[in-house]
Amino acid sequence: MDYATKKLAEEKVFKDPVHRYIHVRDQVIWDLIGTREFQRLRRIKQLGTTYLVFHGAEHSRFSHSLGVYEIVRRMVDDIFIDMPEWDESERLVVLCAALLHDLGHGPFSHSFEHVFDLDHEEFTRAIILGDTEVNHVLTRVSPEFPQKVSDVIAKTYENKQVVSMISSQIDADRMDYLQRDAYFTGVSYGHFDMERILRVMRPKEEQVVIKSSGMHAVEDYIMSRYQMYWQVYFHPVSRSAEVILTKILHRAKDLSQGNYQFKQDPTHFMAFFQNNIELEDYIALDENILLTYFQMWMQESDPILSDLSRRFINRKLFKYIEFDPANEYEKLSDLKELFYQAGIDPKYYLVHDSISDLPYDFYRPGEEEERVPIQLLMPNGKTRELSRCSEIVEAISGKRRSDHKLYFPEEVLLQDGTQKTLKKQILKVLRG
Amino acid sequence: MDYATKKLAEEKVFKDPVHRYIHVRDQVIWDLIGTREFQRLRRIKQLGTTYLVFHGAEHSRFSHSLGVYEIVRRMVDDIFIDMPEWDESERLVVLCAALLHDLGHGPFSHSFEHVFDLDHEEFTRAIILGDTEVNHVLTRVSPEFPQKVSDVIAKTYENKQVVSMISSQIDADRMDYLQRDAYFTGVSYGHFDMERILRVMRPKEEQVVIKSSGMHAVEDYIMSRYQMYWQVYFHPVSRSAEVILTKILHRAKDLSQGNYQFKQDPTHFMAFFQNNIELEDYIALDENILLTYFQMWMQESDPILSDLSRRFINRKLFKYIEFDPANEYEKLSDLKELFYQAGIDPKYYLVHDSISDLPYDFYRPGEEEERVPIQLLMPNGKTRELSRCSEIVEAISGKRRSDHKLYFPEEVLLQDGTQKTLKKQILKVLRG
Amino acid sequence: MDYATKKLAEEKVFKDPVHRYIHVRDQVIWDLIGTREFQRLRRIKQLGTTYLVFHGAEHSRFSHSLGVYEIVRRMVDDIFIDMPEWDESERLVVLCAALLHDLGHGPFSHSFEHVFDLDHEEFTRAIILGDTEVNHVLTRVSPEFPQKVSDVIAKTYENKQVVSMISSQIDADRMDYLQRDAYFTGVSYGHFDMERILRVMRPKEEQVVIKSSGMHAVEDYIMSRYQMYWQVYFHPVSRSAEVILTKILHRAKDLSQGNYQFKQDPTHFMAFFQNNIELEDYIALDENILLTYFQMWMQESDPILSDLSRRFINRKLFKYIEFDPANEYEKLSDLKELFYQAGIDPKYYLVHDSISDLPYDFYRPGEEEERVPIQLLMPNGKTRELSRCSEIVEAISGKRRSDHKLYFPEEVLLQDGTQKTLKKQILKVLRG
Amino acid sequence: MDYATKKLAEEKVFKDPVHRYIHVRDQVIWDLIGTREFQRLRRIKQLGTTYLVFHGAEHSRFSHSLGVYEIVRRMVDDIFIDMPEWDESERLVVLCAALLHDLGHGPFSHSFEHVFDLDHEEFTRAIILGDTEVNHVLTRVSPEFPQKVSDVIAKTYENKQVVSMISSQIDADRMDYLQRDAYFTGVSYGHFDMERILRVMRPKEEQVVIKSSGMHAVEDYIMSRYQMYWQVYFHPVSRSAEVILTKILHRAKDLSQGNYQFKQDPTHFMAFFQNNIELEDYIALDENILLTYFQMWMQESDPILSDLSRRFINRKLFKYIEFDPANEYEKLSDLKELFYQAGIDPKYYLVHDSISDLPYDFYRPGEEEERVPIQLLMPNGKTRELSRCSEIVEAISGKRRSDHKLYFPEEVLLQDGTQKTLKKQILKVLRG
Repeated sequence: MDYATKKLAEEKVFKDPVHRYIHVRDQVIWDLIGTREFQRLRRIKQLGTTYLVFHGAEHSRFSHSLGVYEIVRRMVDDIFIDMPEWDESERLVVLCAALLHDLGHGPFSHSFEHVFDLDHEEFTRAIILGDTEVNHVLTRVSPEFPQKVSDVIAKTYENKQVVSMISSQIDADRMDYLQRDAYFTGVSYGHFDMERILRVMRPKEEQVVIKSSGMHAVEDYIMSRYQMYWQVYFHPVSRSAEVILTKILHRAKDLSQGNYQFKQDPTHFMAFFQNNIELEDYIALDENILLTYFQMWMQESDPILSDLSRRFINRKLFKYIEFDPANEYEKLSDLKELFYQAGIDPKYYLVHDSISDLPYDFYRPGEEEERVPIQLLMPNGKTRELSRCSEIVEAISGKRRSDHKLYFPEEVLLQDGTQKTLKKQILKVLRG
Repeated sequence: MDYATKKLAEEKVFKDPVHRYIHVRDQVIWDLIGTREFQRLRRIKQLGTTYLVFHGAEHSRFSHSLGVYEIVRRMVDDIFIDMPEWDESERLVVLCAALLHDLGHGPFSHSFEHVFDLDHEEFTRAIILGDTEVNHVLTRVSPEFPQKVSDVIAKTYENKQVVSMISSQIDADRMDYLQRDAYFTGVSYGHFDMERILRVMRPKEEQVVIKSSGMHAVEDYIMSRYQMYWQVYFHPVSRSAEVILTKILHRAKDLSQGNYQFKQDPTHFMAFFQNNIELEDYIALDENILLTYFQMWMQESDPILSDLSRRFINRKLFKYIEFDPANEYEKLSDLKELFYQAGIDPKYYLVHDSISDLPYDFYRPGEEEERVPIQLLMPNGKTRELSRCSEIVEAISGKRRSDHKLYFPEEVLLQDGTQKTLKKQILKVLRG
Repeated sequence: MDYATKKLAEEKVFKDPVHRYIHVRDQVIWDLIGTREFQRLRRIKQLGTTYLVFHGAEHSRFSHSLGVYEIVRRMVDDIFIDMPEWDESERLVVLCAALLHDLGHGPFSHSFEHVFDLDHEEFTRAIILGDTEVNHVLTRVSPEFPQKVSDVIAKTYENKQVVSMISSQIDADRMDYLQRDAYFTGVSYGHFDMERILRVMRPKEEQVVIKSSGMHAVEDYIMSRYQMYWQVYFHPVSRSAEVILTKILHRAKDLSQGNYQFKQDPTHFMAFFQNNIELEDYIALDENILLTYFQMWMQESDPILSDLSRRFINRKLFKYIEFDPANEYEKLSDLKELFYQAGIDPKYYLVHDSISDLPYDFYRPGEEEERVPIQLLMPNGKTRELSRCSEIVEAISGKRRSDHKLYFPEEVLLQDGTQKTLKKQILKVLRG
Repeated sequence: MDYATKKLAEEKVFKDPVHRYIHVRDQVIWDLIGTREFQRLRRIKQLGTTYLVFHGAEHSRFSHSLGVYEIVRRMVDDIFIDMPEWDESERLVVLCAALLHDLGHGPFSHSFEHVFDLDHEEFTRAIILGDTEVNHVLTRVSPEFPQKVSDVIAKTYENKQVVSMISSQIDADRMDYLQRDAYFTGVSYGHFDMERILRVMRPKEEQVVIKSSGMHAVEDYIMSRYQMYWQVYFHPVSRSAEVILTKILHRAKDLSQGNYQFKQDPTHFMAFFQNNIELEDYIALDENILLTYFQMWMQESDPILSDLSRRFINRKLFKYIEFDPANEYEKLSDLKELFYQAGIDPKYYLVHDSISDLPYDFYRPGEEEERVPIQLLMPNGKTRELSRCSEIVEAISGKRRSDHKLYFPEEVLLQDGTQKTLKKQILKVLRG
């Protein structure tokens, strides 16, 4: 039988707390799950440093990837099947793209990419197209199949309907992570009626649209997303941990480039410090290894590297104050000066961190990040953009919300000993 | 104010998916949670290798420890308070013991202890009584306080009622892990009405007893426990991963003792290989470090160490068959012989693994492991042992159930190439 | 198009708290739901008097009937479809039988049948086969179709596999009511993994069997059933309400047959009092009507009828003591005598109520109520009876458990006034 | 002991699916629950006709009333206790007001009040202050206690803080019904983190305010409310049932006032038809009685009364179209004319139904219905109105949303037979 259509003798199931069961019937999917590159996702947490605030958030990208696959599987096998506007020949490519869409994430992805100027999406493509177990499985389907899967994930695939299933303002990726992250953190946000949304999804030319009778379920989903961003993903304490993590990596890189002699060679990092990264170096990394290094670096003689590492491992995080970059620029440079004088390097110990989110937007041609809006399918067969139908969505549509904070080691400033006056002055400035 | 009774200015809460919120009011508890030894529990999974079968089971002993604390907190602050048989002066010691009861667990505890002949309970005591941050916090309460906490955990504390709250056949430890492990794995077992059980718990002389009106909730709890053991904790595939993990550690130890030259020094393991373990060596270890070594060992020249490490990291597990040690002893020695002949070392590649569980037992004096039975408090004020009241519990009471399996690398035996005939013969014997 | 296979233009869904959604695609099913006989089930509570103890249990047989239909629909459309041992031509008959299996239940079914010597199963058949809207829908499928549906419900249908789907020790009926009743009462029993059980169900010659890999889910289901019986269905306080209800109906019947002049003619009851019941009389009854009469009867001059009615409506229930019919027969007749002397008619005010349940049984040929045991399908393709595989099920298999109580109006006996000494004596006997 | 502070020997609990358990410790509360007026609430559905769309919504006002009591109990006993701005002497009055706040609701309250020009709030006060069992219990606390309870419910109580606990834009009443109605209907809206909201509630002079750290939980609550209104409470099909119900009552009243001879005297309704209502007449009514009459009226000779009654009982509802009263006034009068000509009385068969909701509003002095806005308690101790802090709430604040529909018996218009042309014309006008 053809490998692309080969079914397992008996369906395999994974017990999943979010979707109850994840069902695998296709040999290709089963083989992909068994590859080392996919198994590696077990060693990368879904929410990075969030577990230091929400202790339940210890789940990995492995379970999320299975979840996205399962949602797409339900779309194609339970909902779209037999619908005239759905092209059944796209089934396998979208299932594979769903499963593999996060394959290139590195350890503590966001910070890591930032420090070493990397892009996880590039690595996702590199793993799919390079000499990997994943690539070998995909190539068995057909020689051009890896490129197709990669294109779907990169959003360059010709069939935009297929792209929209995993990358749009209401896609399988978001629907899984909102529910999954809510489940593992235990927050009560993140609930919405996914079963209803799936049932009203309709494949339409360039994208999957939503029957207007499901509008309220979509509103609920948009609100869930909004709440999850501000309550969980942007939690100021997990940002503190991320700030420290970023600074550890910066410091180690700076030291290495300054020819500092590490007690134990940072073998796994050398390619990154030297900016000479092979795919294999990247795949070999994971969060266990980072944390193992951080533990070793607690013993390093460089006081900044050892202090920051200790802070991360033992969770001695920075405190923060609100910061208004538009009006407090001077305050920041004053503070930097004072930190220098007090012997506390502001490059590592006074960090301006900013985040922002746009909860939903309609199409604004020419914008940097063009977003495909959610389209409702009206009873008359025409589509209408969501924010034109929903008051609630209209209200938040296109409104970017940002937050700025300054992070710093408060307990150092409170310590008695050297520089007491200077520290008091710093605290006074910080507390406004 | 006295440190033992010092309250936080504002109650702190942790969001917890099992108990909704975990409430901390006591300064002592807050300080204990902040110690490096307690934070280390974030790096030890609650269920060891189970996540390789139930992908949701990535939660750590940190969250379980908070959970046990919270259950005991509810007992003492919501239920026992003002009851005449409850000694309020035991409040803090039992809260601390609940929080710290798993402090000495090592990475993949069960296998690790087995290979290096260690006992995590000893390490729990060592951390509480040694020169650690935890000890410093406890000592601030009073000089003898660490010893008291340690005694409760060791079950040698004089007040057996207090001991029974965290170590008995229905204790806060079990009530937390059953629910927590069910939640994270997503299985539907593990549900029972804990709120009801807490409400009918009554402190009585030597133990906490249960009002007879709550008997059915207790039955449900016993059944949950039974199902969790056989469906989750003893899952044959996670036992396969544990078998491999044990054999990796064995092989590394054997190699080290045989003066094998590792490519990278196994620094973190040296104390363990040389059986010369300081407390600090033990605390420094965690699962990140073990998994980092396993990844490095995939590159070792020793074929057994590298093969087993690769199996664990990439989840290429052993298959298994049922085994009856009473009647198939000869079969096992035949198989060992055949494995030798085929060049597959049976010491590492043919593993007899057995587990057993006793779901509930009444008191059997003189038994190796004397169990305190669950006592029901009857309306007349007398107590009666659970299995004398409950038909269901009586039915399973004292019935030990065991399971034996042989684990082996099936795909090696199915490979073409050398020793084809011998491998076929082995498979024939294995498949009976 | 053929009526039997006619599909709705668009699938209809009912929001259901237990199964999330109930899906209707078949025109026949849709038409049956719309009949007056099926809508009548909204006016009959699923759990009779239980709502007087578990206030959430106000749900009707209507929702249960939809639930049983939905479970069977999943069996046939999601699981059995394409399985060689499943006869697709049975699909519609089993769906209709599932939906209609409780159609003949009267108001407070159990008590009502008891007093008027009726059998709801007979009325189910009568409604299906008589001149009713339900019958007209079924007849449109084919003239013999009503009889087939009736036979499945009566368990006389030739294809026993089909019968077992709604009437066996693990059928859609039980799986729905256990979950539904647990949901509405709010008890934590009643959870089991139905999705798993459905997935391992296999049609086999004479019955649906369960793949042995699902044994633990079945054990859990059996335990749920056990707990629901003893914790909910047999709750002593709801039995008290049922005792009173039975006695109201008895009294009204006795009065009517004794030519008592009711203030308001008991029109709806006349056929029942005179034992001359037409199908239409039966269908016209529901719980609203019964409760309306009870309210009217509170104003009747007969003191017993008005007292009992008031007790039911205002929930002034009887108290109870345990009773051992084997050894306390004499006590009961003594009590009756004392009640007579005290002027409290023991026929209505001293009620011996007994219940019993057999949680599971294997096949015992010749027994009054032959039960089809649950068969597990072993990997070798043979079946094995459940209790031979499961220790837990074996332990409770065939063990009938009974409970006897005496119900009486305690507050009357505690009242001062007439017969004070006699009442004291009665209380003394009652309290043993 | 004083009756006001008398505690039950042992706490009583009710199993509740929404709050797990409802706890009763006070003798007064226990006695109130046992009164006939409170037990009557079991016979009034919480959501009127909604069960005809969401079949799970069969729950009564009894369970909701217990739920509101339980929420207030948690506020006062778990949160406010020991807070300086909370006046402990208000505890009992607010608990009683919470329990009794819906006491005066009649059967299918909204329609019933509309037809007979009644106000359930007036009846609540009448029951509390009249010669009732409830009044007798309350009077035992103190002679002026009934008036105090009544004042809290009527919002005229002097202590506005107490009033706001059960009547404000975030009160125990709403928090219970949103969750409860979501639970019983099974919709996924209605979830919010009540435990969090309770924990951040702070008694403040004139009202209970919310600590600003809980703002997001409040946003979630406001959104839940919004969704429940539009998805559940205003569901167009349950409005259809309500339209019919209203018209049944209208018709019966009109007939009675026109001296129509009912086959069976409408005893229970006479006081209402004659607009001469005693408290006892009102209390004697419930939904069982209404539905019993509707069944009897199916047999009446008046074709409109019998048709409408049959429609309600057998759920043959009206269909609907959208209607724009501002621009389609003429269309409506044309339709009325056509209905007359076709012999279908538009008074009963062409119904304009409108609903509207204001999801949240800040204080607008002088408005007809002055609303107390939700105040957030900022870290600096000042309060700030919610919509000034929350973008989402601001977006919907003060925006009243309305909906208008025309209801009519579509199947009559589709019937062949008389007036075929006229009916066709009507359908054409209706369908625009």
